[in-house]
Amino acid sequence: MTDAPASAAATIRGDVIFDAAGRNTGGFRNEVTVSRPNGLPGEVYELPTDEGPGHGGNSSAPYPLAYFTSALTACVMVQLRAFARRMRIEVQDINVNTRCHWERVQQGSAPYVSAPVAFTMDIELGPDVAEADQRRLLAAAEKGCFIEAALKPGVMRHRLKIKDHWVEVRSAP
Amino acid sequence: MTDAPASAAATIRGDVIFDAAGRNTGGFRNEVTVSRPNGLPGEVYELPTDEGPGHGGNSSAPYPLAYFTSALTACVMVQLRAFARRMRIEVQDINVNTRCHWERVQQGSAPYVSAPVAFTMDIELGPDVAEADQRRLLAAAEKGCFIEAALKPGVMRHRLKIKDHWVEVRSAP
Repeated sequence: MTDAPASAAATIRGDVIFDAAGRNTGGFRNEVTVSRPNGLPGEVYELPTDEGPGHGGNSSAPYPLAYFTSALTACVMVQLRAFARRMRIEVQDINVNTRCHWERVQQGSAPYVSAPVAFTMDIELGPDVAEADQRRLLAAAEKGCFIEAALKPGVMRHRLKIKDHWVEVRSAP
Repeated sequence: MTDAPASAAATIRGDVIFDAAGRNTGGFRNEVTVSRPNGLPGEVYELPTDEGPGHGGNSSAPYPLAYFTSALTACVMVQLRAFARRMRIEVQDINVNTRCHWERVQQGSAPYVSAPVAFTMDIELGPDVAEADQRRLLAAAEKGCFIEAALKPGVMRHRLKIKDHWVEVRSAP
């Protein structure tokens, strides 16, 4: 047991909570309302889902997995933008291409079992950002992203565009 | 090594893929387009995100985590509806209330580190569905849900409403 150094910055802990109420009355369309219990008034979002006609739905709203794929992509982008400021790394446009790939396996007509294959994310921070800065910014964003933090280890893969080449970045443990 | 029984149902394997293209030009709003590479024409979704004013954004679109919370809720609901049919369990309305709870910890103004606390899901399948049927339907839905399959073990918690009481359901390994 040692005393913390006198210069240690204070530790700040915060809760981040989102609630959803979902209702389904028979088909594949779900009415879903999302709110934040500690959010501002008006932070309530109607985010219904449906399946496409190939999956028994009517395409009246996005697939649940479309929301998921946007959420994962944008969550990392928010951390990249916010942490670039905190880390004093100058970043102009951020472009990200994500592929979320699962497989499902079933025996005959029994319910299927799902598993993620890989979620790959190609991140362009622009040619003017030094490779070392790109790497430390991505490392921080991975640790800050709420969704990545909830995923099974090994599912996410990231690549950075360094000097016109895509370079796979191994996450720190 | 034994031969499969002659009556074994065929194993069917399928890929499920969603792609996102995200673009950020400076603030906290992200333009995000989601598509399915093997989907039908028209299965393209504009799903932009923003942060609220408390987090540096303009509330011009839902938070990424709002999409995530809808996606998780609806993904389970789709499996409950689809598998109820396959398992010949009669289910009328499905109501689900989900809370996604994370914490974030930071030292001073350094980038924060996120971690899930728990994602809890309270599921009402109606008083007319026998407890045993509710339990086996939920067990199948957990295994079928693409998002749950990608989450760290132990993050998800489910409760079923059995005879007016909420009962926590432990997932099978």
